[in-house]
Amino acid sequence: MATSTPKPEAKVQPADPASDPNAVVFSGDGEPHTPESTIERLNQLLAEGKLQPDKYSLGGTVEELETRMAAELGKEAAIWMPTGTMANILGLRKHCGMNARIALQEQSHIYQDEGDALARLCGINATPLAFDRPYFTADELKELLKMSVTGRVLNPVGAVSIETPVRRQAGQIMPWTEMKAVTDLCHEENIPVHLDGARLYMMSAATGIGIKDYTSLFDSVYVSSYKYFGAPFGGILAGTKEFIEGMFNDRRMFGGGIPFGYLAAGLSLNGLEGFEAKFAESFAKATELFTEISKLPNISIKTFEHGSNIFELILDDAIDTDQFVVNLRKNKIVVTWPNSEWHVPLLHVNPSILRQTNDEILQAFAQA
Amino acid sequence: MATSTPKPEAKVQPADPASDPNAVVFSGDGEPHTPESTIERLNQLLAEGKLQPDKYSLGGTVEELETRMAAELGKEAAIWMPTGTMANILGLRKHCGMNARIALQEQSHIYQDEGDALARLCGINATPLAFDRPYFTADELKELLKMSVTGRVLNPVGAVSIETPVRRQAGQIMPWTEMKAVTDLCHEENIPVHLDGARLYMMSAATGIGIKDYTSLFDSVYVSSYKYFGAPFGGILAGTKEFIEGMFNDRRMFGGGIPFGYLAAGLSLNGLEGFEAKFAESFAKATELFTEISKLPNISIKTFEHGSNIFELILDDAIDTDQFVVNLRKNKIVVTWPNSEWHVPLLHVNPSILRQTNDEILQAFAQA
Amino acid sequence: MATSTPKPEAKVQPADPASDPNAVVFSGDGEPHTPESTIERLNQLLAEGKLQPDKYSLGGTVEELETRMAAELGKEAAIWMPTGTMANILGLRKHCGMNARIALQEQSHIYQDEGDALARLCGINATPLAFDRPYFTADELKELLKMSVTGRVLNPVGAVSIETPVRRQAGQIMPWTEMKAVTDLCHEENIPVHLDGARLYMMSAATGIGIKDYTSLFDSVYVSSYKYFGAPFGGILAGTKEFIEGMFNDRRMFGGGIPFGYLAAGLSLNGLEGFEAKFAESFAKATELFTEISKLPNISIKTFEHGSNIFELILDDAIDTDQFVVNLRKNKIVVTWPNSEWHVPLLHVNPSILRQTNDEILQAFAQA
Amino acid sequence: MATSTPKPEAKVQPADPASDPNAVVFSGDGEPHTPESTIERLNQLLAEGKLQPDKYSLGGTVEELETRMAAELGKEAAIWMPTGTMANILGLRKHCGMNARIALQEQSHIYQDEGDALARLCGINATPLAFDRPYFTADELKELLKMSVTGRVLNPVGAVSIETPVRRQAGQIMPWTEMKAVTDLCHEENIPVHLDGARLYMMSAATGIGIKDYTSLFDSVYVSSYKYFGAPFGGILAGTKEFIEGMFNDRRMFGGGIPFGYLAAGLSLNGLEGFEAKFAESFAKATELFTEISKLPNISIKTFEHGSNIFELILDDAIDTDQFVVNLRKNKIVVTWPNSEWHVPLLHVNPSILRQTNDEILQAFAQA
Repeated sequence: MATSTPKPEAKVQPADPASDPNAVVFSGDGEPHTPESTIERLNQLLAEGKLQPDKYSLGGTVEELETRMAAELGKEAAIWMPTGTMANILGLRKHCGMNARIALQEQSHIYQDEGDALARLCGINATPLAFDRPYFTADELKELLKMSVTGRVLNPVGAVSIETPVRRQAGQIMPWTEMKAVTDLCHEENIPVHLDGARLYMMSAATGIGIKDYTSLFDSVYVSSYKYFGAPFGGILAGTKEFIEGMFNDRRMFGGGIPFGYLAAGLSLNGLEGFEAKFAESFAKATELFTEISKLPNISIKTFEHGSNIFELILDDAIDTDQFVVNLRKNKIVVTWPNSEWHVPLLHVNPSILRQTNDEILQAFAQA
Repeated sequence: MATSTPKPEAKVQPADPASDPNAVVFSGDGEPHTPESTIERLNQLLAEGKLQPDKYSLGGTVEELETRMAAELGKEAAIWMPTGTMANILGLRKHCGMNARIALQEQSHIYQDEGDALARLCGINATPLAFDRPYFTADELKELLKMSVTGRVLNPVGAVSIETPVRRQAGQIMPWTEMKAVTDLCHEENIPVHLDGARLYMMSAATGIGIKDYTSLFDSVYVSSYKYFGAPFGGILAGTKEFIEGMFNDRRMFGGGIPFGYLAAGLSLNGLEGFEAKFAESFAKATELFTEISKLPNISIKTFEHGSNIFELILDDAIDTDQFVVNLRKNKIVVTWPNSEWHVPLLHVNPSILRQTNDEILQAFAQA
Repeated sequence: MATSTPKPEAKVQPADPASDPNAVVFSGDGEPHTPESTIERLNQLLAEGKLQPDKYSLGGTVEELETRMAAELGKEAAIWMPTGTMANILGLRKHCGMNARIALQEQSHIYQDEGDALARLCGINATPLAFDRPYFTADELKELLKMSVTGRVLNPVGAVSIETPVRRQAGQIMPWTEMKAVTDLCHEENIPVHLDGARLYMMSAATGIGIKDYTSLFDSVYVSSYKYFGAPFGGILAGTKEFIEGMFNDRRMFGGGIPFGYLAAGLSLNGLEGFEAKFAESFAKATELFTEISKLPNISIKTFEHGSNIFELILDDAIDTDQFVVNLRKNKIVVTWPNSEWHVPLLHVNPSILRQTNDEILQAFAQA
Repeated sequence: MATSTPKPEAKVQPADPASDPNAVVFSGDGEPHTPESTIERLNQLLAEGKLQPDKYSLGGTVEELETRMAAELGKEAAIWMPTGTMANILGLRKHCGMNARIALQEQSHIYQDEGDALARLCGINATPLAFDRPYFTADELKELLKMSVTGRVLNPVGAVSIETPVRRQAGQIMPWTEMKAVTDLCHEENIPVHLDGARLYMMSAATGIGIKDYTSLFDSVYVSSYKYFGAPFGGILAGTKEFIEGMFNDRRMFGGGIPFGYLAAGLSLNGLEGFEAKFAESFAKATELFTEISKLPNISIKTFEHGSNIFELILDDAIDTDQFVVNLRKNKIVVTWPNSEWHVPLLHVNPSILRQTNDEILQAFAQA
């Protein structure tokens, strides 16, 4: 905005070390976004004839992405959305219909970071579970379902939403058995259940459980295509044909009928190529690396009990964290610190880890 | 969408003659969008260092565009929005606050083509004026304001919206004197008045009245940056600093917080360069051309009483319109026909008219 | 309210001649409400054991009223509502579901006098028809239905509402053939159609068409029980069992779950007894009387083309209307004047006409 | 409703012992409602000229009640509402305006028993505090306020609501010091704070803290006039003149513009007479009685830590609770059992305790 108001988020500085194509950036879920790499990829896509214009997000490369993602996610149909917020809200809004409530995690992006759109724009009461924890249990959901129909007014739950991995909980996930129990309960109760799987590919790489194994438990799934597929924005909402059909109307009502979306869609398709293998390689490399780093004095890297691609960097009091981070940067190792949301530095594993050898990185940690 | 549902709008065919860089396309308000020209411009912007990433549409080139457009429109501040629908809805929602009603044209894009978002998402009653006409008068608005506070319940009007030129009325405009009278009434009554000026630059070129003369009558203004500035999407909402401040929160709540908007913003800034002069030249050329064409037998080009850049192509019964249009295409003159919204072909003037000489175009019409 | 704010409606004065039990009151649709007559009737109902308490409007005399009215209206089920506004809004809200629009008369109570509750509380766009007229035609509705699905976004009409008689149009009605055509169209299009029949009994008496003939055309019906059945408040919403089932939840959500409604319900049931016959008698008496009055010099009583129980009192310029009304009052004939909504005095026929003989009333008009 | 659907609450049976005018009914907050006593009081009010009709809840006895209650509650103005649900929702809706969130107790009537009206009708996110407990602390509120403005979108809290005593927590209250701390925090943060004081008079009698001492901490207050003042329905919302002004419009929009409210308002005014003294007497009598009862073998009456007029009846295993309750009824002592919401019988103190001497009641407990 062209005002002097304080911004909630600082600008990316041109000299940002994260933009260096040789930097290992332990932050974010994909390789850092730069204009250079983006436009290079666009030139290539144009040369290969892979950019077909859409009309207000209908047809062309956008439709190609939708078809491809529906298949990847094992769903009948998919629709491209400009943001994850829109994908989540439109999906839950349609599931919920005239029902009163949606159950979700108190720590979820939808409850904390989407502007209360469910209540404010959709008239839906988002009832939170699992305060300050990554996930809720089937029993907790059962209790909530009971409450919703035993008050003086029936407030039936029209949909359940599960975010996993949970960004606000250092990428921790809902474990498979609990996910199975919760989604089974939803199916028994005939309540649609939605997966906010912005980082679904991360979780799958970390747990070894297949993408389609996860999505098969859910009535609808959102995955981000900007977080790790290198698109400047956009995501996919997938579900049954009946569910997706006509949703482009809602997308336009919310102001999401982007006139030409093919540039973003083309970059998404491109980023999807080989992503799973590349991420698996990154993850394996990280596992090895973190074992080595933990052998260094005064430093250890801790795995979360229900972690995905995020790890805690634990430094003894002997080490000055601020200085440590500065020293790493000299070797093109970027760690985000300080961090408003966590008490120790967090290491995000993403494909930028492939840019240096484990020896180089280990060396940098040792010197820092 | 990856479904078999009938689409409301067909795909752009790869062989679309409108994509030919030498075609004169009498449709749309700017030069037709193609991947080739878009990416060529992106390469140039990158080379010139004019693409600075934003963070969720805050900062970088997006902010540069906002600052520039605020100045162009004579407003204190501006915010970039992914679509005009979002710009209009968020602007009117903020103006209206807890009031009940918004007055607008029955033929406006907001009333007919934005999914009833005012009622459905914002709980605002959009009360229509000027049925089947391009604009309403100050007296009609006065009557509506009176009705809103004399029923059994006060339903005060919280904002007035004026679209001009009106797309559904062949680009006809609200004349200056009526616009002055209506906006004066709004100011007297302390009711914020918003300009849906998606095609404001078109209107200004056609009437010779300056951009800032128009915008000075309004509390807020939306202009499209995809319609003629060659961006793949996006628009600008401008107003007072107080009005724009904090609106990025609403943008995100609606799912419009695009992670990286700098590509679209950069293209907008680029398209803005020299646009006014180029469009004025196009318009002057068209005026001359249409006079010549109207001298041809069995054909005339009619100016609307309150027209902007759109004209009626009137053919005598002697001429087969379908065949005429096909013949024009052979000479790279594109006229959209048939047209679901108007009974004769409409000619939209845009800078593609500069791609051939008036003699060439006249020749093509004569042969057709 | 205990404030010094100007009230939109004046208090009923204790000495109001309309409260005189012998007055013929040509205003309102039933006999005027007084504390005396109300409490006298309550004592009688108590003595007869006809007041059975409900619990939050469930059970007891409230249920008895619902059962009785469902039968009267030829519907499977009925629910008592504290006001007509609530009955209309809750009925239309349920019919409409997640659809975008409701079609209704611009002059209807719902559009003008219910605080825009459809948009503000329910997120429904109420699209008006028949500006300044009592009713719309099937063709006009057809056009509106077409518009709703041909814009850039589908905005399907989820319900149609018809008010008849129309209070803001001097009680004029939608004629039977048009009502038949409109409701047939709704059934063909599978769009639920609701009757705001607050004064349904009036219309039936005036046209001679049976209550159930009317209601059989509609999916749901609201009738007032305070306007002419002598209840202090309340109305009935009737429809299919499925439609009414569970609606007590919505009633409570809107704050309409009155803890004890049996007093009002008992008075409604009581007022219903013999109402049809009494009203038919009143109407026949009025017809005769108005013929006689129209024979007087300088005065005539005019029937509306589509009138129900309301008539125009036309006085020649020779007569001072204000003085005329004052003179009538001396003989306990009450005519409301001046009237903000109509240009001549209106005579409402209701059972208070039975309180004096036609000769007495005629005499009073002659003298006045 | 006239359907065969299972009702959530059973009908009051005519032979209900609670209707016996000599019964001590340890349930409810006032003397039980009966048609006989209600109509007897109406006759008396009519005779005394204390029933003045209103027009759609404006003027007459309704206004008299509003004026009186504003004074009682130490507020500038008051408005009568048909139900507490409507009073709470309209009050909070006005306080909140365009803000996103309201903070309240998870156990509150508003959160559990008002149909999620805040989200569904008002687009407000009700964010719960104090799960399964009677009240929250200032620190917990502080944390919630912080969360609301540190997510990706500002979701400012527009109002705070406190219910006390809390019906779902056996009438337990928020203690004075915590109430002071919470309301002080709200004032500092400029957030309006509302008291759902349906049972405010109960709390005041139990704690000895004056009505106005309580209300002085709040921007608005709701008190029920049906729960203990013997009205069939209705409540009062009080606040500043500016706050109350114009709210009759909202009341009508929600369908709460009851045509004649004077019967209920008259009964409220009547019930208010001498209530405080009578309730204080009842409370003192109960204190004495419960001490005596607790001396009986196998039985004790337990005071809640933060209790108001509700007490636990603890019976040793030696006693069959069901039989005990049946035995009490023989002596016209009514205890509600079983109770879906609490694990032991609860004794509600209300003025029906004055109908028998403590010796008689004690005797009945001893025999039971």
